[in-house]
Amino acid sequence: MQTFASIPGGPVTSTAHRVPTTATAPWSLHPDRALPADPVLRPLARELYATTRGLPIVSMHGHVEAALLADDAPFGNPAELFVTPDHYLVRMLVAQSTSPHGAPGVRGVQDLGVAPLASAPAGTATAETDPREIWRRFCAGWHLFRGTPTRYWTEHALVDVFEAHARPSAETADALYDHLVERLARPEFRPRALFERFGIEILATTDPAQSPLADHARLAADGWGDRVVPTFRPDPLLHVDRPGWAAQVAALGSAAGTEVVDYRTYLDALRSRRAAFVAAGARATDHGHLRADTTPLDAADATRILDAALRGTATPAEADAFSAHMLFQMAAMSAEDGLVMQLHPGVLRDHCDGVARAYGPDRGYDIPEQTEYVRALRPVLEAFGHHERFRMIAFTVDETSFSRELAPLAGVYPALRLGAPWWFLDTPDGMRRFREASTDTAGFYNTSGFVDDTRAFCSIPARHDLARRIDAGHLARLVAEHRLDLDEAIETAVDLAYHLPRASYPAPGR
Amino acid sequence: MQTFASIPGGPVTSTAHRVPTTATAPWSLHPDRALPADPVLRPLARELYATTRGLPIVSMHGHVEAALLADDAPFGNPAELFVTPDHYLVRMLVAQSTSPHGAPGVRGVQDLGVAPLASAPAGTATAETDPREIWRRFCAGWHLFRGTPTRYWTEHALVDVFEAHARPSAETADALYDHLVERLARPEFRPRALFERFGIEILATTDPAQSPLADHARLAADGWGDRVVPTFRPDPLLHVDRPGWAAQVAALGSAAGTEVVDYRTYLDALRSRRAAFVAAGARATDHGHLRADTTPLDAADATRILDAALRGTATPAEADAFSAHMLFQMAAMSAEDGLVMQLHPGVLRDHCDGVARAYGPDRGYDIPEQTEYVRALRPVLEAFGHHERFRMIAFTVDETSFSRELAPLAGVYPALRLGAPWWFLDTPDGMRRFREASTDTAGFYNTSGFVDDTRAFCSIPARHDLARRIDAGHLARLVAEHRLDLDEAIETAVDLAYHLPRASYPAPGR
Amino acid sequence: MQTFASIPGGPVTSTAHRVPTTATAPWSLHPDRALPADPVLRPLARELYATTRGLPIVSMHGHVEAALLADDAPFGNPAELFVTPDHYLVRMLVAQSTSPHGAPGVRGVQDLGVAPLASAPAGTATAETDPREIWRRFCAGWHLFRGTPTRYWTEHALVDVFEAHARPSAETADALYDHLVERLARPEFRPRALFERFGIEILATTDPAQSPLADHARLAADGWGDRVVPTFRPDPLLHVDRPGWAAQVAALGSAAGTEVVDYRTYLDALRSRRAAFVAAGARATDHGHLRADTTPLDAADATRILDAALRGTATPAEADAFSAHMLFQMAAMSAEDGLVMQLHPGVLRDHCDGVARAYGPDRGYDIPEQTEYVRALRPVLEAFGHHERFRMIAFTVDETSFSRELAPLAGVYPALRLGAPWWFLDTPDGMRRFREASTDTAGFYNTSGFVDDTRAFCSIPARHDLARRIDAGHLARLVAEHRLDLDEAIETAVDLAYHLPRASYPAPGR
Repeated sequence: MQTFASIPGGPVTSTAHRVPTTATAPWSLHPDRALPADPVLRPLARELYATTRGLPIVSMHGHVEAALLADDAPFGNPAELFVTPDHYLVRMLVAQSTSPHGAPGVRGVQDLGVAPLASAPAGTATAETDPREIWRRFCAGWHLFRGTPTRYWTEHALVDVFEAHARPSAETADALYDHLVERLARPEFRPRALFERFGIEILATTDPAQSPLADHARLAADGWGDRVVPTFRPDPLLHVDRPGWAAQVAALGSAAGTEVVDYRTYLDALRSRRAAFVAAGARATDHGHLRADTTPLDAADATRILDAALRGTATPAEADAFSAHMLFQMAAMSAEDGLVMQLHPGVLRDHCDGVARAYGPDRGYDIPEQTEYVRALRPVLEAFGHHERFRMIAFTVDETSFSRELAPLAGVYPALRLGAPWWFLDTPDGMRRFREASTDTAGFYNTSGFVDDTRAFCSIPARHDLARRIDAGHLARLVAEHRLDLDEAIETAVDLAYHLPRASYPAPGR
Repeated sequence: MQTFASIPGGPVTSTAHRVPTTATAPWSLHPDRALPADPVLRPLARELYATTRGLPIVSMHGHVEAALLADDAPFGNPAELFVTPDHYLVRMLVAQSTSPHGAPGVRGVQDLGVAPLASAPAGTATAETDPREIWRRFCAGWHLFRGTPTRYWTEHALVDVFEAHARPSAETADALYDHLVERLARPEFRPRALFERFGIEILATTDPAQSPLADHARLAADGWGDRVVPTFRPDPLLHVDRPGWAAQVAALGSAAGTEVVDYRTYLDALRSRRAAFVAAGARATDHGHLRADTTPLDAADATRILDAALRGTATPAEADAFSAHMLFQMAAMSAEDGLVMQLHPGVLRDHCDGVARAYGPDRGYDIPEQTEYVRALRPVLEAFGHHERFRMIAFTVDETSFSRELAPLAGVYPALRLGAPWWFLDTPDGMRRFREASTDTAGFYNTSGFVDDTRAFCSIPARHDLARRIDAGHLARLVAEHRLDLDEAIETAVDLAYHLPRASYPAPGR
Repeated sequence: MQTFASIPGGPVTSTAHRVPTTATAPWSLHPDRALPADPVLRPLARELYATTRGLPIVSMHGHVEAALLADDAPFGNPAELFVTPDHYLVRMLVAQSTSPHGAPGVRGVQDLGVAPLASAPAGTATAETDPREIWRRFCAGWHLFRGTPTRYWTEHALVDVFEAHARPSAETADALYDHLVERLARPEFRPRALFERFGIEILATTDPAQSPLADHARLAADGWGDRVVPTFRPDPLLHVDRPGWAAQVAALGSAAGTEVVDYRTYLDALRSRRAAFVAAGARATDHGHLRADTTPLDAADATRILDAALRGTATPAEADAFSAHMLFQMAAMSAEDGLVMQLHPGVLRDHCDGVARAYGPDRGYDIPEQTEYVRALRPVLEAFGHHERFRMIAFTVDETSFSRELAPLAGVYPALRLGAPWWFLDTPDGMRRFREASTDTAGFYNTSGFVDDTRAFCSIPARHDLARRIDAGHLARLVAEHRLDLDEAIETAVDLAYHLPRASYPAPGR
């Protein structure tokens, strides 16, 4: 290891001090990782975690494609599996692309394999096509992920799922790449084999409202219908001023067998697709609006705005009002058909318009904003907050709302559950702060249990395992501070890991 | 204890896994509860707590009725004492009323004994009238309170005050009920005996401005005048657009012996009642406005709006402006008469209008909102922030304001103190976060000391004891991190528990 | 030590319980101060801190005057060095000026030596002129600083820099004063000698845009040109409605040798001064706007508003729009000339207008406000967020923005770094919360490294030392929770203390 005696005296180049990472080996996961360091808490946390670590995974919200499991084809190369589609990972490498601490060769998303859109402006940089080169760049930037959940999840997947034995670095990149390629070729690394190995009991995908759910039908035909279920996501249909809305609505009509010509047929088509999702095993809907606003319009105004939208003349203000109105309508339909309503507001998508126009959405440029829930959710909660068949799960990336708004709301309205800490907050410290900020007022039983929300299939076990470890640590503290008895903590740990996610997303015909 | 071996393999019913709670006995309070688990901090915290645990209770803000102590009659049954009037408790049981994890028989507030208003809409569900049944429902839902302060306080009261020996559960409910009924019949469980036993030195009640303070007069006649003091709460009089405002103003006039016919007589009547409260021993006023806004109007506008209000024609905007103006006037009067001005803003009352219309206010449907203090308090602080006789204590349920707004303000204006963490934040972790977020900038001596703010008389010792434990833990950390010497920590602990609340609420004639 | 047996029984005067502070001696700094108390974390933190404690200090943003080092004259008396100019310290003593716990003799800023402005209203209290008396007041109020960073920094400076051996108190004040006076007279306590002793490698000052940089020229002539560099601060020039703006612009023109008669000459003069700063070794600009807004105007509007401003007719709304526009222009110029753009928004200056009119700015009455970054910074980040030569470092006093806004932004835009926790957040617990809230999303390498931002020269080593201790504690926790390997933690600790601040503020010609 380097000594630093030379530093005070003179200039230091920005990378000369790097610890040679090849020196550290073999690579492994510590059995106590992410448990509290405190010597009183750790044995308690270990005992609690031991009761949950083997429980099946209930993954009720995520972005894994059903086709992946329907096809059950081998995964592609390591870059395609780990790097290019993972916006957490891409964004961090891009953020250091002009820094002396960054990974050589990364100047933007394209150098990590992200391809320009067909509609990209002239001169847009083309994507790196050599997966080994992409993988090298990621490995050379491994130090940038220190302290982040990406580091934690990736480490878990590489070591535990793929049996990698060296920490990623410029030096180890090629050997790791070859190792992963070898593993990916084996039958036991195909999606369904991993699904079994991961102990997944049920996995929910996220699907457009107009999806024919063909992949789910193939899964059902294979006897996997109860294991992989769709989720109804109508966002693009509810924002009447977004480019492509009319085409989406036409597709909705096709899928529903109902030509959408007015507000009534629009609602009918949505209702029809919801029924198709229920028939295909769906448990929930999902809504990613910018604001949580659920203020309904009267029917005449809604009719008028939708007519204007169909003519292409709705104003942005009308579009906003209509999307809030439609959240209210979605709640009303949920109270009828029993689909759990998931709300994921507060993210400003595509903050950098230039990147979005060149490379499309989901490239790491989505940024949280402050989000108001108390008045925004009031219309839905007054109307359906005590309804026996209605269930809303609210997520946030604005952690100030945990103690101030969401825990107080979820702590009184029977229909509302507080979702697991989401996206930028789905981290060891984020989950800990969530429990500390929400439990006082919402308790444990008004939360949804863990929701992984990932598109990275191989990270699912890491994410659930991490949540169980953090909850074990939180409960251990309550026990050690004599605020909870050990038997209660054990029962609660199991409920958080297993029974609450199951109970939070009941089958509609419950 | 249950083994979980059976869970991974198959379906689990939602309650089959419950640990039988009857197995855990006897029930007791750990002497180190709520102290830090860390083995370095705990002995230090224990030493600090030992210096404060026996100090008298100074309870300068709460909602215990003076009549309780004036009458000194035995408490009613366990449901009436612990369940029905406690909105923390009612809200949690209601929140799980449609959940498989909830307490059987609870479908809404009515099943916990909350009676409909006389004006409730037709068809409103009537209240459960059997107190034993209400108590059973609470006990069956005991697990829902895990990790909450309600659990902590109730446990303290049941074990320490009432000597209960079994953890509440469906199985133990009846025995506990009988035990409590037996205790409540004893003379040493009457209010004044408990007051003595709790070591309360002084207790402030909260009283409408027009209250004749008859109960306080009876207490004074019994020699309890210095022990139970009133607090002047004029909220309904300062919101000219609320239903019933005119009747309240008429009552104010009657109480003051001044017919309120215009702005001048309105101020005179308020001033007169403040003087009556001072004479009855009051230390403070209390203000629960939605916003902290203290912007004054000029006298002509104030006069005009009050005239309009007396005619029933004030607009909502005028009403808002007038209530902010009146906070400024209350500050001006405090600078004259020396009553400490307590501000409790930021709670949206009666979020669910339907529940409020059926069962009235204070049923658990009050929800915090983001609250701005910096500009809102500026008019009062510029006018009176350096006034020798003016003291404002500001509370919040929006913890984001601790480090950003309230600690910086309280850390410079002599007249401002930062109140103890309030309501949803009056919890072990909430109090810890408060000290961590506010001490850097406000120190300890610009905070009010502990304020319990409870209507649950039997929880007062639990709340003060908990605050002393949390402060001991916080100070222990400063000592262990060598940021404070032990002798300083001991002195500070005593100040926070005793001298600061006394000094924060001086008698007006100080 | 006092026993508290007497307290419960009767009345207590507010100061009778004070622990005699003279009893504690000798005074020293614990080698493990500000490291975690946890027995697992402390040895790890100690090991990490050992690798950074001797590193040179890179102080890239602060308010020490260049003249101090150019003159290298002895410091004045202890009051002038420690008390009067330190707004942290003044504000705390003022905050307790009407309290029984406060320091005797302090009724307002004047009693701590703050002199009225020449333009102060008639009747403004005059300043205490006896430095020993000011020092006594500070020492008598020492207990008020418990738990604050002022206490920590001052303790460090008194013990470590000045070898004081008694804790400040009313009893020790005079002996401490005499001790400090004796030390200040020695040559080794002159500014340049302390600069060397502190191990400062480079120190950035903050200078008005129109400054002739004469003190920096004298330093350069002495061979100190690379050690003390200026920072370009144009705030008063960019707010066209502030009193004195026209005079400032005239001075800018003079300094630039360009008469400012319109928007073009205004930009030219700014550009010219930036070039002069670059030539004098500047690394950065600094911007203290109230809002972070960077929305540009079109050139015609900017021209029109500046013309109006030169005529004295710009409206407040125009002035606000223009100042946002000028932040965009400053970014554009930074992309040209390579000066790092530092943004310090969100502080409402001079909250108490009366104090500002009597005693001027920087008296402790600056209060943070909620600050929005996501939309405010969007124009600059869309335009320059991927520019190779552009670097912005954003600071905040609103810690809610760490996890919600600033870490997500800094975690994707290459040009943006998240500055160290600033002002009210530059504290042990504030820095810890900063790492916990920002690292998940921004990692370590998108933060700026430590920035001290102080005008108190003798506190610079304390502040850097404290930051290194807190980072050591944070990294120790990651290691102990097996989320980071020890070699990585060591490298990261060194980067945070030394390489990141160097790399964050590169010389413009890099």
